[in-house]
Amino acid sequence: MIKVGIIGASGYTGGELLHLLANHPQAEVCYITSERAAGQDAGELFPGLYRYNRLKFTPLDEKELPALDIFFLCLPHGKSMAVAKELIKSPVRIVDFSADFRLRAVAEFEKWYNQPHLAPELCNNAVYGLTEIFREQIRTAKLVANPGCYPTSVLLPLIPLLRAGLDISPDIIVDSKSGVSGAGRNPGLNGIFAEANENFSAYKIARSHRHLPEIEEKLNLFASKQIRVTFSPHLLPVNRGILSTIYLSFSNPASDSRITEILELAYQDEPFVRICKPGELPQLTQVQRSNRCDIGIHMYNNGKNAILISCIDNLVKGASGQAIQNMNSLFNLPESTGLPIEGEIV
Amino acid sequence: MIKVGIIGASGYTGGELLHLLANHPQAEVCYITSERAAGQDAGELFPGLYRYNRLKFTPLDEKELPALDIFFLCLPHGKSMAVAKELIKSPVRIVDFSADFRLRAVAEFEKWYNQPHLAPELCNNAVYGLTEIFREQIRTAKLVANPGCYPTSVLLPLIPLLRAGLDISPDIIVDSKSGVSGAGRNPGLNGIFAEANENFSAYKIARSHRHLPEIEEKLNLFASKQIRVTFSPHLLPVNRGILSTIYLSFSNPASDSRITEILELAYQDEPFVRICKPGELPQLTQVQRSNRCDIGIHMYNNGKNAILISCIDNLVKGASGQAIQNMNSLFNLPESTGLPIEGEIV
Amino acid sequence: MIKVGIIGASGYTGGELLHLLANHPQAEVCYITSERAAGQDAGELFPGLYRYNRLKFTPLDEKELPALDIFFLCLPHGKSMAVAKELIKSPVRIVDFSADFRLRAVAEFEKWYNQPHLAPELCNNAVYGLTEIFREQIRTAKLVANPGCYPTSVLLPLIPLLRAGLDISPDIIVDSKSGVSGAGRNPGLNGIFAEANENFSAYKIARSHRHLPEIEEKLNLFASKQIRVTFSPHLLPVNRGILSTIYLSFSNPASDSRITEILELAYQDEPFVRICKPGELPQLTQVQRSNRCDIGIHMYNNGKNAILISCIDNLVKGASGQAIQNMNSLFNLPESTGLPIEGEIV
Amino acid sequence: MIKVGIIGASGYTGGELLHLLANHPQAEVCYITSERAAGQDAGELFPGLYRYNRLKFTPLDEKELPALDIFFLCLPHGKSMAVAKELIKSPVRIVDFSADFRLRAVAEFEKWYNQPHLAPELCNNAVYGLTEIFREQIRTAKLVANPGCYPTSVLLPLIPLLRAGLDISPDIIVDSKSGVSGAGRNPGLNGIFAEANENFSAYKIARSHRHLPEIEEKLNLFASKQIRVTFSPHLLPVNRGILSTIYLSFSNPASDSRITEILELAYQDEPFVRICKPGELPQLTQVQRSNRCDIGIHMYNNGKNAILISCIDNLVKGASGQAIQNMNSLFNLPESTGLPIEGEIV
Repeated sequence: MIKVGIIGASGYTGGELLHLLANHPQAEVCYITSERAAGQDAGELFPGLYRYNRLKFTPLDEKELPALDIFFLCLPHGKSMAVAKELIKSPVRIVDFSADFRLRAVAEFEKWYNQPHLAPELCNNAVYGLTEIFREQIRTAKLVANPGCYPTSVLLPLIPLLRAGLDISPDIIVDSKSGVSGAGRNPGLNGIFAEANENFSAYKIARSHRHLPEIEEKLNLFASKQIRVTFSPHLLPVNRGILSTIYLSFSNPASDSRITEILELAYQDEPFVRICKPGELPQLTQVQRSNRCDIGIHMYNNGKNAILISCIDNLVKGASGQAIQNMNSLFNLPESTGLPIEGEIV
Repeated sequence: MIKVGIIGASGYTGGELLHLLANHPQAEVCYITSERAAGQDAGELFPGLYRYNRLKFTPLDEKELPALDIFFLCLPHGKSMAVAKELIKSPVRIVDFSADFRLRAVAEFEKWYNQPHLAPELCNNAVYGLTEIFREQIRTAKLVANPGCYPTSVLLPLIPLLRAGLDISPDIIVDSKSGVSGAGRNPGLNGIFAEANENFSAYKIARSHRHLPEIEEKLNLFASKQIRVTFSPHLLPVNRGILSTIYLSFSNPASDSRITEILELAYQDEPFVRICKPGELPQLTQVQRSNRCDIGIHMYNNGKNAILISCIDNLVKGASGQAIQNMNSLFNLPESTGLPIEGEIV
Repeated sequence: MIKVGIIGASGYTGGELLHLLANHPQAEVCYITSERAAGQDAGELFPGLYRYNRLKFTPLDEKELPALDIFFLCLPHGKSMAVAKELIKSPVRIVDFSADFRLRAVAEFEKWYNQPHLAPELCNNAVYGLTEIFREQIRTAKLVANPGCYPTSVLLPLIPLLRAGLDISPDIIVDSKSGVSGAGRNPGLNGIFAEANENFSAYKIARSHRHLPEIEEKLNLFASKQIRVTFSPHLLPVNRGILSTIYLSFSNPASDSRITEILELAYQDEPFVRICKPGELPQLTQVQRSNRCDIGIHMYNNGKNAILISCIDNLVKGASGQAIQNMNSLFNLPESTGLPIEGEIV
Repeated sequence: MIKVGIIGASGYTGGELLHLLANHPQAEVCYITSERAAGQDAGELFPGLYRYNRLKFTPLDEKELPALDIFFLCLPHGKSMAVAKELIKSPVRIVDFSADFRLRAVAEFEKWYNQPHLAPELCNNAVYGLTEIFREQIRTAKLVANPGCYPTSVLLPLIPLLRAGLDISPDIIVDSKSGVSGAGRNPGLNGIFAEANENFSAYKIARSHRHLPEIEEKLNLFASKQIRVTFSPHLLPVNRGILSTIYLSFSNPASDSRITEILELAYQDEPFVRICKPGELPQLTQVQRSNRCDIGIHMYNNGKNAILISCIDNLVKGASGQAIQNMNSLFNLPESTGLPIEGEIV
């Protein structure tokens, strides 16, 4: 059994980890931390997870962490660095949910997150945990930077097209819509029920959301021309899920079947990425509570334009499911061990 | 024009007052206070109400209030007393939204709200602002205690039956369901979107909610036997509305038509209370954004039992609309002036 | 592997069966019928379940059913009888989701469902599939009548109390609230989004819902005095879940700890029933997508009254999960095989 | 008093007309038709509108319509033509909600709506009822084609920019999100509660939605270069509202203040269009149940790109409120007579 610790386990990503790991045949959660829930049982804070009735939250003391096989760090941005710096000294594996180690460009991190990086020396060793793309490096990593939820929904459909050398115009528009759990368990005024319900709004549009540098840095690893993304997130009155509508144009017209073929080939052996049939567009429901990313393709304008639509569950493939997929890789388990493939019917 | 001040205008009841008064032909909001929104325009805080673009929130200083015709106090329980004590010295009329002056029994207030009453001498002069029932006293009142939202939904259907001397068994069960705006704009963890959405729960059931003493005190003004209510509120994943399902039994069987007749007679001239036709049960939608209370009647068990179902919008008939109805009474306007009668179609 | 057929698999209970059985280690769905979806793949109709991409719906011909180990009949009330009559001739096991075999009293069925029973001879052999209560009979049954969703939420908390001989007053009030999926995939006008959303309403209250005779017949198997239930269902704007608020009074006061003790004892070895701790009331979220029933207890009035609150997911413990629990019993598997215990965190 | 008839009054746009006209001081609904609700009172079908308790739906017979001042035709596409053809013979004014008379290009209508036009001779006389833009022609029109809901949200922000001769690149991307009431009261499977709730999806994207030719024809009345729109509608789990995110690029960089200035100037005297302040983006709530269109502006990339975000209530500014604004114009009333300006606070 893999012995698991979760640092910051009282939020939604921590709770989802607990939920998913309850059904993992080869992992066991042994240790969880939380400041606000310190002293409480996990089964008390999350009454849906009552099997954790004897697992208590403790306050975090990064100098006194137990010897386990893996730690998931579910801390806010800027708070993981110090913990990772300590843990990296021991042989434990680390999957970090924050943005602290996602960007290779430390200066970009410092600019976007408005703080000095406390462990810049780790950034180059950290592997970006989009398993389908970086699987090889993940297997031997000590520190995995789990991707952001929006980036996951954008990178999975686009990287294979860039890798295939298609003549994509470098200006890409991404219009994303996310459920409210993406804002966490302290969401501020916009996230309270009566404000978010029956409402819909855009925020931090164009070039202002912190996931933008992450999206661009990773896309540009695979692009021949410098990609520049217009990224417009919106707040959707649902609990879970991200749907990204991605607008592409091609300098040389591409055919519908060519795009489909590239994506199908890229993901043919992947349990967690599904390319929709021609004419089919994915809906949020079908990926909710699953670790899947479903991708629909619509070509128009004689092959000069394409719309890609991708759907994920922000708490699963966009966070905790992805992290477990990474854990499975780190420990040489089949990647789908303990992970839900089916989405919802309703 | 009636010159209106609103103390504590940045919450939902204050915002709803602003919304409703924007369409009142004979009242004008001149003054609004808020601590958190001090310095902001009302139209900025509530972008739906942009006609208030030049009305600024000021912090509350009860010693320096301007001379107006009426003040609405939209403050938390326990905070109105001090302001009312000051205002009562001037000729202004006061409608208080808090519980501070709803109970005649000061000791009950102190027990349920767990604090000493700062102005017990005003409790006897304050008139309980359920206009349909206490209209005569309201007209000449200086201080009106606007009813709680749950009590409004319970008192309107029950008082006429008690007044008619029906032989109602004194144990009454009220199973109420309220939308989330009832918890205000700082609702705590239970009121954040991802917790309340797709969820439903009971809270403070049986004999533990603070609206219970208010319901019982007012019912017992009209009852021949001491009424004792089992009151179970539930949190409903909608923005607005309360539906109360009220279970009655009769020592002497009553007929369906008798109950209907009493209620229809009681409210035949009331614009804001509607008795449903036989077989019809009211739904939340039909009273949302209206100042109405709709009441459905279902008799069974050969007249030995009845279920009454009442619906209101907690922010309108349950708060701000009711307050304006009281203002209209205080200033001898037709009671429905500026108030919405129609509910929603969708 | 248990070979499974599902008759009427294109609705919500059929879809949920497919979803749950996809993770059952010892059962395999081999055959599914549907009229409206005939010719389609299950993975096409339910794109969340794409692993069923090669399983086609066929139209139902009850004379030409394949030889399998078990059939689940997910047909409307009145439609199962004919199919069961045919299947009963073969050695296959049957779990019927309709009301056709739930009532021992055939006359009651004919009255409430307004049609003659086509297979009255089977009613006495059918076992009522509330596994926790009728486990012994289920193990050897040929035909299991899967309980209604509302009855499940009422019977699980009440039967142990009746069985313990507590002096419960025979008039019991049940105020139930159900998510919209309970109305199926052709819900009529009330079930379309813009009508149900932001709405809430009661329907078929007091003595008029078809689940009433089912509740009363089963309760009275365990009661010393004839129980008479006032049952008021309400339509809740959520996808899944039933919360029932049950009002009891006792002729002889009972203590909080006594009630808790009886229920805890009754369910101490049950994986799918959880008695809440003192002071805790269950919420819908915690049982959604789980096969659990959580029960909260609140005593008041010096032990003369109790409120029990029970929560289930209407599609899981209230339908398809319960059916699989029954299948596990029928085939001598551990009852929890392949069934979710954890509810949602969000 | 303007005497009003509504043809097809039992759907959402008809119901919303009834709701709004109940508060119109100079109009009176005298006649309503519906096939499915024939014989019922409007107040029975829409229990929120109980003041219409004595107004009965009659089946439509276009040969026997009463002599009134104005008819609103709330019929499905393809059904208005025959009625308009009859009504045009009398002196009555007509506001048609369908697409039948929106396009000048009859061939386009026939292609997109897949049927021959029965009254092509009326298409040139019909005036497109976007009041802010075509007010002059509307005043004297006999037949007003009320705009589609999506087009309203796109045309109001874009027409002033085109009219100002800005060098807008002709490829415009519009990513729109609409509440479910836009699909009407017979929405099909996608519109039932359990399918639409907690879900989100794109449909008829790029060049396939019927509102596309309407958007392009009207934009091109004001464009120097042929505009070509990529239009992607999405289904949003809210009752009401459309938010359109519009992506523009400029051949010559424009400044933020220039765009703002043009839009502010265009709408400075309009009660129903509001240009947001710099940095402010509109949200759905603030226009719900109001006749307003709020528009936010975000420039980036050194003036080479802009995102415009517009919000309307699809049933008010996108349908019935717009129609009343047109009626007010037709009868020389102030355009805002009887129309709500304030949106929701919650």
